[in-house]
Amino acid sequence: MVTTDKTSVKTYFFTLSGAGYHSESKAKEYKHVCKRACQRAVEQLKAGVLAVEAVAAALVELEDSPFTNAGMGSNLNLSGEIECDASIMDGKSLHYGAVGAISGIKNPVLVANRLLSEAQKGKLSAGRIPPCFLVGRGAHDWALSHGIPSWPSEKMATKFSLSAYRRNKRKMELAEKMEPGQTKRRRQSSENENGSGCLDTVGAVVVDLEGNVAAAVSSGGLAMKHSGRVGQAAHYGCGCWAENGCNLNTYSTAVSTSGCGEHLIRTMLARECSSAMQTEDAHRALLETMQNKFISSPFLASEDRVLGGVIVLRCCRCVETQPSQNIQGILVEFLWSHTTESMCVGYMSAQDSKARTHISRLPPGTVPGQSLAIEGGVCRLMSVAE
Amino acid sequence: MVTTDKTSVKTYFFTLSGAGYHSESKAKEYKHVCKRACQRAVEQLKAGVLAVEAVAAALVELEDSPFTNAGMGSNLNLSGEIECDASIMDGKSLHYGAVGAISGIKNPVLVANRLLSEAQKGKLSAGRIPPCFLVGRGAHDWALSHGIPSWPSEKMATKFSLSAYRRNKRKMELAEKMEPGQTKRRRQSSENENGSGCLDTVGAVVVDLEGNVAAAVSSGGLAMKHSGRVGQAAHYGCGCWAENGCNLNTYSTAVSTSGCGEHLIRTMLARECSSAMQTEDAHRALLETMQNKFISSPFLASEDRVLGGVIVLRCCRCVETQPSQNIQGILVEFLWSHTTESMCVGYMSAQDSKARTHISRLPPGTVPGQSLAIEGGVCRLMSVAE
Repeated sequence: MVTTDKTSVKTYFFTLSGAGYHSESKAKEYKHVCKRACQRAVEQLKAGVLAVEAVAAALVELEDSPFTNAGMGSNLNLSGEIECDASIMDGKSLHYGAVGAISGIKNPVLVANRLLSEAQKGKLSAGRIPPCFLVGRGAHDWALSHGIPSWPSEKMATKFSLSAYRRNKRKMELAEKMEPGQTKRRRQSSENENGSGCLDTVGAVVVDLEGNVAAAVSSGGLAMKHSGRVGQAAHYGCGCWAENGCNLNTYSTAVSTSGCGEHLIRTMLARECSSAMQTEDAHRALLETMQNKFISSPFLASEDRVLGGVIVLRCCRCVETQPSQNIQGILVEFLWSHTTESMCVGYMSAQDSKARTHISRLPPGTVPGQSLAIEGGVCRLMSVAE
Repeated sequence: MVTTDKTSVKTYFFTLSGAGYHSESKAKEYKHVCKRACQRAVEQLKAGVLAVEAVAAALVELEDSPFTNAGMGSNLNLSGEIECDASIMDGKSLHYGAVGAISGIKNPVLVANRLLSEAQKGKLSAGRIPPCFLVGRGAHDWALSHGIPSWPSEKMATKFSLSAYRRNKRKMELAEKMEPGQTKRRRQSSENENGSGCLDTVGAVVVDLEGNVAAAVSSGGLAMKHSGRVGQAAHYGCGCWAENGCNLNTYSTAVSTSGCGEHLIRTMLARECSSAMQTEDAHRALLETMQNKFISSPFLASEDRVLGGVIVLRCCRCVETQPSQNIQGILVEFLWSHTTESMCVGYMSAQDSKARTHISRLPPGTVPGQSLAIEGGVCRLMSVAE
């Protein structure tokens, strides 16, 4: 058995993302919040929590940043309101919790996490099955009745999100004035299509020393979305996926996605990436999945640009070559890929004193939504066994 | 090319379901509404509509029946309100539309279908991506702004659904009085667990003469569910699935599920069944999927009873042996399977003068949620080619 006391060599791994477009000034803020989220997760893991709790803690940091499109600072919808989506999956229990179009809650991921943990306790009174997915007002009321406080909606918007809303509103009015009528409104390209601030869903994937994986995702959704619209962040198999290794699966996998919700839903990208990760060459598997199951997916045949990004973590226990040292190891591969112009990634293990961050960009001359970037690395996490 | 004028031999196929428990008296009503829905779909197909429109028409019949747990007569939630889920998928375009926790709309499937058809038209003004999934108040308002009228909520409830609500409420209060406190409330079995009226989601699958498939599903959700709870009927890959054959897939497949939403979501049963149908032996594929990916799914390891049912349709074009007659054919296999005590199925082709219906029951002595029933048939649909 792996020790959990504080004297052993503890090692964990963690990474996170936001796919969209990042200007130089925005990139700095993004890197900063990614670092904080990594550090927060690693602190939690060092304190002994499991992967699912650590990933929730990281998401809280990301949601609390006014610079991400999640929680505080989320995109405003068509009616000028903030409605958030979030979900979390625990690779150990395979339980899942999600909230969609929820308002007036500071950290939607905590409601999703609470749904997950409540469902793990088993049936409700009179044999009723506990929900795994709640939306709108009902989700808000459930949160309150489970001790998660309400948060004034006006405090969720920021100077940045409000000015973006006004700018988008003017752009929409202008577009509709120039091209009135149902038919003409369609298929209009726009500079906003892949614009900043509209796709930056945040997510995280974690493995703890026991080898449990977890994934979570949170989003304010597309800017100027219709009220009630739910994106991939609340959609099972689409926003995040986590599955511990078992008899059938050699590898534990955790995936989190970011980008255009409808594209990520219709291709079920998180689960597709997770399934693909059971073949030997992780890099090749992710490349082929992004190419064949996303950019060239028959489900998105009518889309000219397919926008999204993923962070993927897979790991397996590995036997060490020095039996004398009684060391157990976990081999962790972490990869990211995106078709958006850029994606911000951060990662850290418990051996690191601080997180590393990176803005990944498409190669020069390539077209967002039709090309992809892919990168990654491998690390070996050790612990002294009892 | 296959002719579409009215003089040719037209043939279509259609079937539908509701998994739960059906008493003898209820079975009669169920068979009756199944027949009407089949006839409605076939009428539509004869008038020349495509599979996706025919399946929507069938669902409207099912929703309008006060005996099904969908649309009119839906289960009431904990707050005594009706909130419905519905989704539809078109195997030809692979587009999908869904609504969750929607109130005050007579036919939720029509909103889902409208979302599907609006999304097919391409982007909205200023390059915005149209939604495929809307929930709650936002879904209701979107429906109204797209010409679907509001319907008084009090007209959605029936004498039956109201008395079931009062009965369930008393049962819950009694259970909570007998077993107060959070811990004791858990894991209480109850006669209501697999009771009548709580799982009867309705669904349909259709193939038209061009060989296009479509599937749809609609549900009032579990009785006494929390407000805002969304079940499999609104969940991509879980409630319904439809995929025309293509280079990669020999068969066109359409699947619709019924039963306990959380179980059907966490196992993504509709999509799993569809994928499994690409192997040669459809009966065996469905049996193995129901056994390994549903009853014994690692995702539902903590559940003592796994409750659900599916209707599956798969078809492929077949070459006829009489070349002189210039006949084109579609070989259609239709199967159903369930772990619930019973499931009502109806089916009809355009050659039939009326629909056939059947109440499928688990074999005597078997335990619901741990055993399954599986049945099905094959038919060959012909048409004179041009």
